[in-house]
Amino acid sequence: MFAVVLACAMALITAVAQAADPLPSWKDGPAKKAIVGFVQATTQKVRPEFVPRSERIATFDNDGTLWAEQPMYFQLFFALDRVKALAPQHPEWKDKEPFASLLKGDVKGALAGGERALAEIVMATHAGMTTEEFEKIVKDWVATAKHPKTGRLYTEMVYRPMLEVLAYLRAKGFKTFIVSGGGIEFMRPWTEKVYGIPPEQVVGSSIKTKLEMRDGTPSLVRLPEINFVDDKAGKPVGINEHIGRRPVAAFGNSDGDQQMLQWTQAGSGARLMMLVHHDDAIREFAYGAESKIGTFSDALMADAKKRGWVVISMKNDWKRIFAWE
Amino acid sequence: MFAVVLACAMALITAVAQAADPLPSWKDGPAKKAIVGFVQATTQKVRPEFVPRSERIATFDNDGTLWAEQPMYFQLFFALDRVKALAPQHPEWKDKEPFASLLKGDVKGALAGGERALAEIVMATHAGMTTEEFEKIVKDWVATAKHPKTGRLYTEMVYRPMLEVLAYLRAKGFKTFIVSGGGIEFMRPWTEKVYGIPPEQVVGSSIKTKLEMRDGTPSLVRLPEINFVDDKAGKPVGINEHIGRRPVAAFGNSDGDQQMLQWTQAGSGARLMMLVHHDDAIREFAYGAESKIGTFSDALMADAKKRGWVVISMKNDWKRIFAWE
Repeated sequence: MFAVVLACAMALITAVAQAADPLPSWKDGPAKKAIVGFVQATTQKVRPEFVPRSERIATFDNDGTLWAEQPMYFQLFFALDRVKALAPQHPEWKDKEPFASLLKGDVKGALAGGERALAEIVMATHAGMTTEEFEKIVKDWVATAKHPKTGRLYTEMVYRPMLEVLAYLRAKGFKTFIVSGGGIEFMRPWTEKVYGIPPEQVVGSSIKTKLEMRDGTPSLVRLPEINFVDDKAGKPVGINEHIGRRPVAAFGNSDGDQQMLQWTQAGSGARLMMLVHHDDAIREFAYGAESKIGTFSDALMADAKKRGWVVISMKNDWKRIFAWE
Repeated sequence: MFAVVLACAMALITAVAQAADPLPSWKDGPAKKAIVGFVQATTQKVRPEFVPRSERIATFDNDGTLWAEQPMYFQLFFALDRVKALAPQHPEWKDKEPFASLLKGDVKGALAGGERALAEIVMATHAGMTTEEFEKIVKDWVATAKHPKTGRLYTEMVYRPMLEVLAYLRAKGFKTFIVSGGGIEFMRPWTEKVYGIPPEQVVGSSIKTKLEMRDGTPSLVRLPEINFVDDKAGKPVGINEHIGRRPVAAFGNSDGDQQMLQWTQAGSGARLMMLVHHDDAIREFAYGAESKIGTFSDALMADAKKRGWVVISMKNDWKRIFAWE
């Protein structure tokens, strides 16, 4: 009984705290207004747009939406660090591309081999161990590796305004999910701590795993074989497979998110579709149609306008960018 | 603020209710004792077996564990009803196996073609429509189709003692998941209403889907191609893919659940592994090693004994079987 009383006291404190601005890092403007307006409309029973609690599903891309993705996807930094760490066990890499270029520090040269080179790097660094071993490798990496430009941990390179959106939505009964092209097992070891999103609410790309008995104990071994690519048209497929219902809100930042936002909007009732636009060269990075990472094409911008999606300007809509600011 | 006060009142009522026996349909015995003992040990902070709330993951097989599975898997009844409903659009089925036998009411003859015949029936009845269309077909079926022996809706053929376990675990902060060899999209339309398990907590077998734009609107079309078989060694794979952490409790009833229970037990700390044994020919069905549906082999029984899993005797451990009793 004491636990219940305590929980009630906590709930009251939370309720009071929420009366304050739930999005303090957002400037007053159309983006903030869209978020608050959507939440108020869908969570008040008297409103026609009301959405029952169980259907309040919100999905978020990760790279470029929740954390930064420049000068390249952070998972690629992880893969490169793994190549260096594993090189002593692979003397043959010295003469074999893409590893030879990588070990000389020539990332561009290594990736010149295109998707095949990238796949080789991913498989060499992400497969061959058990799921538990991989989880430990990722945890150790995020605890120590630093972003080359800011010198911060990668898990500090998260956008404070988006952390506020996650917390605000959850406080209003939404379940928040990540739906990312990144590796599902690369994200799960830290998303709960950093975003408050538990492993079971992370959807991502994956390689196949296989159950093996070792001395009567089962292990899941990671195989060098693609299982699922959670990008573009794959995002609605991944959402359907993992969540089994259509989101009512979706957040992205690139061409890879277009189908997720279209899929979200195609449901009936109130919907919120938002795209983070990286237009702040001073406080973060400015990139868009010309970028290879997180491409925000002119076609995406046109689709957003046509369909009434809200484009978030990092420059104009966000008071602060990173959590440490 | 009123909502918070109301929520607190509800919480207090729930707390009082919980002081009563959480498992009234269970006879006092080793099975009930194992469940209550596990929950008390893992949810009290002072206990060495304490498990943090976020790690309280419990997985349940469906066929034969949460609902009945005799005289054959209910999803097969669904498929047969679909063959009958679709027959007018497929005049060629009259001369084509396995459909010809099925339409004559000869299920045994139809399934004589083994896995290939079964796959043909599944693909003809589960693929070719959008995910939304399939959801509606399933919802209509479960709302009307009746079990041939009891005359009850299939969704009434659920085990009341297991509903109590689900509710008890959830009241104690566990997240309950289904991990079934059955079709994920066949279960999701009704599991929330029947078990209190939302679609995003259902893991099952699946066929592939593909995003298609129709007049600018995206649809997910179900393809006649296996995506994942969530059975035996596939269960730990499915758990890892969908949940991303190891369960602390797992419930099954057949050889198809053996690896899930082994996988659950292989984690550190307190664990609960239970198998429902169908040994009550009078109130339900009695079957085991000799059955083709829900086989409980002698090897499974031996493994359960060796590893200390708790076998639930429907005859001796359950006061009531079905929810309507």
